Amino acid sequence: MLLHTLYLIAIVAEAMSGALMGMRRGMDRFGLCLIGTVTALGGGTVRDVLLGHYPLAWISHPDYVLITIMAAAIAAAGARWLRHLQNLFVSVDALGLIAFTIIGCDIASTLALSPLIVVLAGAITGVCGGMLRDLLCNEMPLVLRQDLYASIALGAAALYLALQHVGVAHGVATLVVLVSGFTVRMLAVRFRWQFKVFTAADTGGAH
Amino acid sequence: MLLHTLYLIAIVAEAMSGALMGMRRGMDRFGLCLIGTVTALGGGTVRDVLLGHYPLAWISHPDYVLITIMAAAIAAAGARWLRHLQNLFVSVDALGLIAFTIIGCDIASTLALSPLIVVLAGAITGVCGGMLRDLLCNEMPLVLRQDLYASIALGAAALYLALQHVGVAHGVATLVVLVSGFTVRMLAVRFRWQFKVFTAADTGGAH
Amino acid sequence: MLLHTLYLIAIVAEAMSGALMGMRRGMDRFGLCLIGTVTALGGGTVRDVLLGHYPLAWISHPDYVLITIMAAAIAAAGARWLRHLQNLFVSVDALGLIAFTIIGCDIASTLALSPLIVVLAGAITGVCGGMLRDLLCNEMPLVLRQDLYASIALGAAALYLALQHVGVAHGVATLVVLVSGFTVRMLAVRFRWQFKVFTAADTGGAH
Repeated sequence: MLLHTLYLIAIVAEAMSGALMGMRRGMDRFGLCLIGTVTALGGGTVRDVLLGHYPLAWISHPDYVLITIMAAAIAAAGARWLRHLQNLFVSVDALGLIAFTIIGCDIASTLALSPLIVVLAGAITGVCGGMLRDLLCNEMPLVLRQDLYASIALGAAALYLALQHVGVAHGVATLVVLVSGFTVRMLAVRFRWQFKVFTAADTGGAH
Repeated sequence: MLLHTLYLIAIVAEAMSGALMGMRRGMDRFGLCLIGTVTALGGGTVRDVLLGHYPLAWISHPDYVLITIMAAAIAAAGARWLRHLQNLFVSVDALGLIAFTIIGCDIASTLALSPLIVVLAGAITGVCGGMLRDLLCNEMPLVLRQDLYASIALGAAALYLALQHVGVAHGVATLVVLVSGFTVRMLAVRFRWQFKVFTAADTGGAH
Repeated sequence: MLLHTLYLIAIVAEAMSGALMGMRRGMDRFGLCLIGTVTALGGGTVRDVLLGHYPLAWISHPDYVLITIMAAAIAAAGARWLRHLQNLFVSVDALGLIAFTIIGCDIASTLALSPLIVVLAGAITGVCGGMLRDLLCNEMPLVLRQDLYASIALGAAALYLALQHVGVAHGVATLVVLVSGFTVRMLAVRFRWQFKVFTAADTGGAH
């Protein structure tokens, strides 16, 4: 229930952020709706294709597609105002990352897979929408070099599984992971935490 | 029957256009054949993977792969002459777009999906081959910012479904959509119709 | 047995080469592990998704994922030293290409597909990991314009099938293809064999 609400909020936020990125890359109205939809629904799609888990969520719930298309269209129409809401976007995106990750873990858990794969499925759900967005915008995915985004998804998924493993109730585990994952993500954004980024120098020479 | 003929013409045209684009990007002979094949068969492949509709068309009909490889090879050999046929290419590409879209709708219709998903499946079939081509050529997919290409696929798919819904015979609906979709596409090319393209200014500032 | 050993060596080598490429593109520690894993396991994943062959290898053997993550992490830590091993990498990569290709053929062979599709499945296994690596690094896949890499995979797969078709025992065919494929690949690297690369001039003018 809580998760489903968060899911809907998250796909709206992701669709809007995808559309705003598309605008900066000179896409037309159709492109914005497509990139918004891919950003919002791409993570779950990649997960389900890799797991062979059919039908995909948006194919059995076409209203998800309508929601993301409308969210992208609204973002395009209101872009001038949305930029003042950047802090709100970052927060909603952080919540969405954790919600996507938990949902991904839940789906993988129903398939009797090894814990490592469940954790990966969760992180893939959280992260791959943004990776597809970046690929379609012809940029190297941000997640490959940025501020702990994917690591937080992995950590949240691992924590979620560990809590359930030691007997914590599903609802409690969800809440704990949502709050702690969200907090760590916001701290990472606020204090610009990041892993060491490697450069050509680290490979011992020019290339 | 008509559709199957159009399908074969369309995959030949798409394979050739993919190969010509690959030549401009400095690919070798193998790359040309691969990019031609991906351009021609990629849309149906993406559709079938998303729908979980196995086996893929080219896996049960390997001759499609041979056809696209040969078309790409011929295009590479005859590139100097093919450029004089650019108008022909644009027409065949427009026909192929509509044929792919109708075929995609037909396949999705057999799977008892919601009408919105059937329309999307049609448009994905028409559009995704070119998107994969652009991704492999390391360019932002043209379809995200260009002249109504994807919108025409969506419109053609919606019209096709609507006609069938109100009781128009399958063959008649196919012909009506082919003719009208082709006409709109050629008009869009001729008069350079396009949606508003967004720019950084629309987001209210520099980024 | 031999193939399985070669497979493990190959995924380690591919994961390391993916990580080294990621370092040159400024990825962080997480990105290196991800790009290494995608490079090593991506070819088999693309093949299985296209064939509808579930579950994917790394989903039923999660230890493969651990191996590639560790290999990528080790490569990142030891990058200064690994560059002195470049010749070793090229050799292991060549062995891996042929091993991947043979394994891909074996898997497709169990699915009662046409010989052309089996050959393609082998080549896809050998080549697509590197293609995904290049796409994630925002570069045009090297394989589309380079020194016979994919052609050797196709040739090795075709030879492998032909040998089995004329009655050569499986183990002998494997050895013959490994040795001959490896030899041709190393010669191609050594003497910079390549197909004609096409340029804008070949299309008959500027574009």
